[in-house]
Amino acid sequence: MINKPSLQVIKIGGNVVEQENTLQHFLDDFAKLTEPKILIHGGGKIATLMAKKLNIPTKMIDGRRVTNAESLDLITMVYGGLINKKIVCKLQALTCNAIGFSGADANLVKAEKRPEKPIDFGFVGDVSHVDYGYIHQFIQDGLTPVFCGITHNGKGQLLNTNADTMAAAIAAAMTPLYNVSLYYCFEKKGVLKNINDDNSVIPHITPTSYKTLKNKNIITDGMLPKMHNCLWALENGVTRVHIGNTNMIHLSTKATFTTITL
Amino acid sequence: MINKPSLQVIKIGGNVVEQENTLQHFLDDFAKLTEPKILIHGGGKIATLMAKKLNIPTKMIDGRRVTNAESLDLITMVYGGLINKKIVCKLQALTCNAIGFSGADANLVKAEKRPEKPIDFGFVGDVSHVDYGYIHQFIQDGLTPVFCGITHNGKGQLLNTNADTMAAAIAAAMTPLYNVSLYYCFEKKGVLKNINDDNSVIPHITPTSYKTLKNKNIITDGMLPKMHNCLWALENGVTRVHIGNTNMIHLSTKATFTTITL
Repeated sequence: MINKPSLQVIKIGGNVVEQENTLQHFLDDFAKLTEPKILIHGGGKIATLMAKKLNIPTKMIDGRRVTNAESLDLITMVYGGLINKKIVCKLQALTCNAIGFSGADANLVKAEKRPEKPIDFGFVGDVSHVDYGYIHQFIQDGLTPVFCGITHNGKGQLLNTNADTMAAAIAAAMTPLYNVSLYYCFEKKGVLKNINDDNSVIPHITPTSYKTLKNKNIITDGMLPKMHNCLWALENGVTRVHIGNTNMIHLSTKATFTTITL
Repeated sequence: MINKPSLQVIKIGGNVVEQENTLQHFLDDFAKLTEPKILIHGGGKIATLMAKKLNIPTKMIDGRRVTNAESLDLITMVYGGLINKKIVCKLQALTCNAIGFSGADANLVKAEKRPEKPIDFGFVGDVSHVDYGYIHQFIQDGLTPVFCGITHNGKGQLLNTNADTMAAAIAAAMTPLYNVSLYYCFEKKGVLKNINDDNSVIPHITPTSYKTLKNKNIITDGMLPKMHNCLWALENGVTRVHIGNTNMIHLSTKATFTTITL
């Protein structure tokens, strides 16, 4: 592992994407990272706003969007078009040679439509294959891949895929070639011991300590699927996972965040 | 020139894109082309429909969209997201390894914002540079580039660029490496001698015959900028330009269309 080059796979959520200033600060920092890097972005909040403008009802179950044909078109427009191209364009201005992707492009991320039972989420896909060869080729060519959370089934159907899960799948897929660190940037400074205290960041979590934190109801709700993705990524070859706000990728600051390792 | 490999640069307009059946037939034929190929798509009609849904007024001058910030977001969603990703996904299902691009991706097509005088078209860009090296690299890697008519200025601004012009610019840029044929697919069978007779296709046009046809008012209106793009492409190294409906790229039919050469 020691001989592999490093790769940073960084996921930013809708809260980063929707705030122009926060996004710009993040991209300034991201562009400065000298090692190979991949960006995965969400954008659910902007999609929800656009859905309102278009009178498309937003239906969520367990915090996940139910995706009918109309809302699939919506997220294809918002994630694949508006947000992805804006980020790529902003990175270009920072001399980071970004290239925007959905999973359909170059067949990079294939998925299976999720079974309709027990819950029918509609056009939602679970990642089945990542073409790490092409992604590696693009990185070798000096390009920085920027992914939105859209995949395809190889049979002509685009699918909505959770961007956290997509980031974990891409990070894990790159591990044969790279020593991969995965970063989940969200609105908090990390995984909190006390949800009401922003400074109660738990600095280090392992699978064993996670079990305890879960049993004590310290890690609950929306943090559970995120932690699930972290542990899955680690079990599939990712070296370490970091959870925190966008400051954690800033080169010169010593930000507080949570690191998860096996 | 005889030693260069062939490249087919094919542009489809909004009328092809908006009709599901026509698009599918075209993509079936396009996927079967065995030589290196690049697709450029429009989508103005779908953008206009979406603009109505979002209550964004569509302002056209001389058949060209005036692009304010709101309508730039709109076309970034519709061209860069909805249409581009749908086409890429459909081509993947036909085992054509498509990869979707705006001009910002990999800095492939840079443009200058058009001067505000005599007419202020807003965020509209005229192509200033095409990175033919990267496009060649992608083709060498077995990928088929699919471009929408969006460019960027390298300073963080996306720009709306006429897809016909973009196709001509990309076709011309590839001529150092390829023997390039450019195809403009639209709703007619070709350039017509009599606008009311669909079968009055002029089979061959040269710059000299074009002048005559223009002076006799046989070629007028919307065909003039298209012809301008054709002649510009030929003057900039493209071998031949074809204008016709989507049947002209079908391998086994002998479709009628117009060919333009120097």
